[in-house]
Amino acid sequence: MSATPAAQTLVDARRVMDRCDALARVSASATALQRFHLTPEHDRVNQLAARWMVEAGLRTWRDQAGNQWGRLEGREPGLPALVLGSHLDTVSDAGRYDGMLGVLSAVEVVRRIRSRGVALPFALEVVAFGDEEGARFGTALLGSFAVAGLWREEFWSRTDEAGVSVAQAHESFGLRPERIAEAARRPEELVGYLELHIEQGPYLERADRPLGLVTSIAGARRFTGRVVGEARHAGGTPYASRRDALVGAADIVLAAERIAVETGGIATVGRLQAYPGAVNVVPGLVEFTLDTRAELDSTRDDLLARLLEHGRQFCAERDMTFELTETHRADASFFAGDLMESVQTGIGRATGDTDPLRLWSRAGHDAMALSAVTDVGMLFVRCHDGISHHPGESVLLEDVARGLDAFETTVLEVARRRS
Amino acid sequence: MSATPAAQTLVDARRVMDRCDALARVSASATALQRFHLTPEHDRVNQLAARWMVEAGLRTWRDQAGNQWGRLEGREPGLPALVLGSHLDTVSDAGRYDGMLGVLSAVEVVRRIRSRGVALPFALEVVAFGDEEGARFGTALLGSFAVAGLWREEFWSRTDEAGVSVAQAHESFGLRPERIAEAARRPEELVGYLELHIEQGPYLERADRPLGLVTSIAGARRFTGRVVGEARHAGGTPYASRRDALVGAADIVLAAERIAVETGGIATVGRLQAYPGAVNVVPGLVEFTLDTRAELDSTRDDLLARLLEHGRQFCAERDMTFELTETHRADASFFAGDLMESVQTGIGRATGDTDPLRLWSRAGHDAMALSAVTDVGMLFVRCHDGISHHPGESVLLEDVARGLDAFETTVLEVARRRS
Repeated sequence: MSATPAAQTLVDARRVMDRCDALARVSASATALQRFHLTPEHDRVNQLAARWMVEAGLRTWRDQAGNQWGRLEGREPGLPALVLGSHLDTVSDAGRYDGMLGVLSAVEVVRRIRSRGVALPFALEVVAFGDEEGARFGTALLGSFAVAGLWREEFWSRTDEAGVSVAQAHESFGLRPERIAEAARRPEELVGYLELHIEQGPYLERADRPLGLVTSIAGARRFTGRVVGEARHAGGTPYASRRDALVGAADIVLAAERIAVETGGIATVGRLQAYPGAVNVVPGLVEFTLDTRAELDSTRDDLLARLLEHGRQFCAERDMTFELTETHRADASFFAGDLMESVQTGIGRATGDTDPLRLWSRAGHDAMALSAVTDVGMLFVRCHDGISHHPGESVLLEDVARGLDAFETTVLEVARRRS
Repeated sequence: MSATPAAQTLVDARRVMDRCDALARVSASATALQRFHLTPEHDRVNQLAARWMVEAGLRTWRDQAGNQWGRLEGREPGLPALVLGSHLDTVSDAGRYDGMLGVLSAVEVVRRIRSRGVALPFALEVVAFGDEEGARFGTALLGSFAVAGLWREEFWSRTDEAGVSVAQAHESFGLRPERIAEAARRPEELVGYLELHIEQGPYLERADRPLGLVTSIAGARRFTGRVVGEARHAGGTPYASRRDALVGAADIVLAAERIAVETGGIATVGRLQAYPGAVNVVPGLVEFTLDTRAELDSTRDDLLARLLEHGRQFCAERDMTFELTETHRADASFFAGDLMESVQTGIGRATGDTDPLRLWSRAGHDAMALSAVTDVGMLFVRCHDGISHHPGESVLLEDVARGLDAFETTVLEVARRRS
């Protein structure tokens, strides 16, 4: 169910994939891809992206949240912009397409449109966000929150594992925290926001389709969980007296999966630390992260309420406590019908699939934040076996080419509808 | 059920407790007591202990395993020695009595015997072992293994969290790895080994007795456990495709407790790390420590076999693997009847409790290693609420005094029986 891309589009797609490879070489680790927000690696990929934007004919700048931008004027200067983008930050042992494919496809689409000499009724902007994953400060979307005018004062005091605060990281990056509001875009400056992203799930592959239409993004809430028991010698403490915080946390990890399956939501404990962390000491404190999401916010919140109740009861029976502290919240975003239709047209022209698979995104995206300030639309590119946030992340050259065709046609369709 | 100690014994006990306080100020952490094997802190407490040994009239030296020794000759020079001792290393957020009380009580007992001008039919030696807990290299009793001639070549390549090997740590401490065999004592040099230690359990307090007679030490085996699944994006991976290594490890943590209770053994997961450890990534690998012990080795091994089978089955159902790698093994030690009778006499004279509570030690002790080379005996001092490996560890001054009286009488009783 997919037309073969033109030879020139395959050449363009190869350029996009080569650039993904180039970005993957910029990492804080010698053995894995790890690129966190406001780090030297972030600065280096911003510079690479800016160079490619300039080559594509865009004027570039970095905003006060550390995001990298480029702009191509429309048929006259100063028109509102249709923004195309995604992010350049990664998780700690990442693949090379999550985020980066969207940024580089956007650069390529703008280059192609410019090279055709098409005069659009709006400007085109490309944005490379710096913190979609939240891997450094535990709270995601810092870059796109700033752009959407959703920055909150409490963000400044969040710290990374080394104790560096968001405010300190901004200053080290050459940014001025007191000027963060300058990163915010006003609705009247914007036509909309379009994002291409790998699916990070197996549904397109299972349906044998290269591209999918995103209808909404799951609302995610993230927490730091703490179970407090009592550290004791592993040998001398009778089981009836043990208040083993790791046993409490283990029960919560299993309950999170069970309740998620029952409710139809998703809950993940990705990081967990037991203290004091000695081989012969019963852990007295466990801290862990909890990531929850669902198509509907009500499902996610129901999951959370049940998990909290279950965990508190289990811990109370052992004279322990369990609490969750929220570190990130983004409610579900439902996409603009008009942009969805344009994306559908784009996918149809690129692949012949005029009734594309409609998916809700289990993963959060910068588009969630942008939906607070403008209309948003997204298309997904098939990835192998749903593997993501893992070095095994992979996409087909042909699918990247189809994505470029669909993305470009979507932009032209938005223009046609506005004319 | 306890005679009031003499005023002078309370003064001596106060000196022991003050010295425990002094040692507690030597820590790698500003906010917790942490003193690991072959660290600068280890060197400093060895020097303090040596100074107190010299003040008590002992000749001192440090052996090639980093243990600190002192010796008081008997009625003629060169006699075999009755060794009194314990350890000076700690877990990572420790109390101040586990180990240290035994070393300082031993110094005090030798001082008292010497000050009385008693001529014994053996030398008295005090030893302060450097690695009972195993907190640095994951394998315990390195100091006493060396003394007992149980050193194994494989110990040299064990590493701490910073990647420093045991061999490198020996060299940094001014020791010569090729001379490790010199630390070993021969059976003919030794009369026996006696150790005073806090109970690290609640049984003496529950029985309202200050001192207890130790009959054996549980055989402990320690492991590194690994569950291997697959790291995936937390959002996009359907539950049926998840291979969440932390879910596997959580099930094993809970099963360890359940099977331990069923078998009458003890199993503890004290440290656990999920990789890659990001808030929005399903963990693909979890590593954890497993500490198992029981009064009888057969109970402990039964527990282990059942846990391994359970964990492997759970993980196999999710296409994951579970394996255990042994890092430490010490089989149960049953104490010498002759020394037990002497300890019983000591407790009886010190407290009036002529039929003392007989306890098997759930915790490992240097005495386990020493039992390979000489007869060993131990007495326990009551501690509050069984709290140990925790800053809340506490003992009563009166109990420390009773411990000194009982320890001293035990030594004199050993001498009487040999005369």
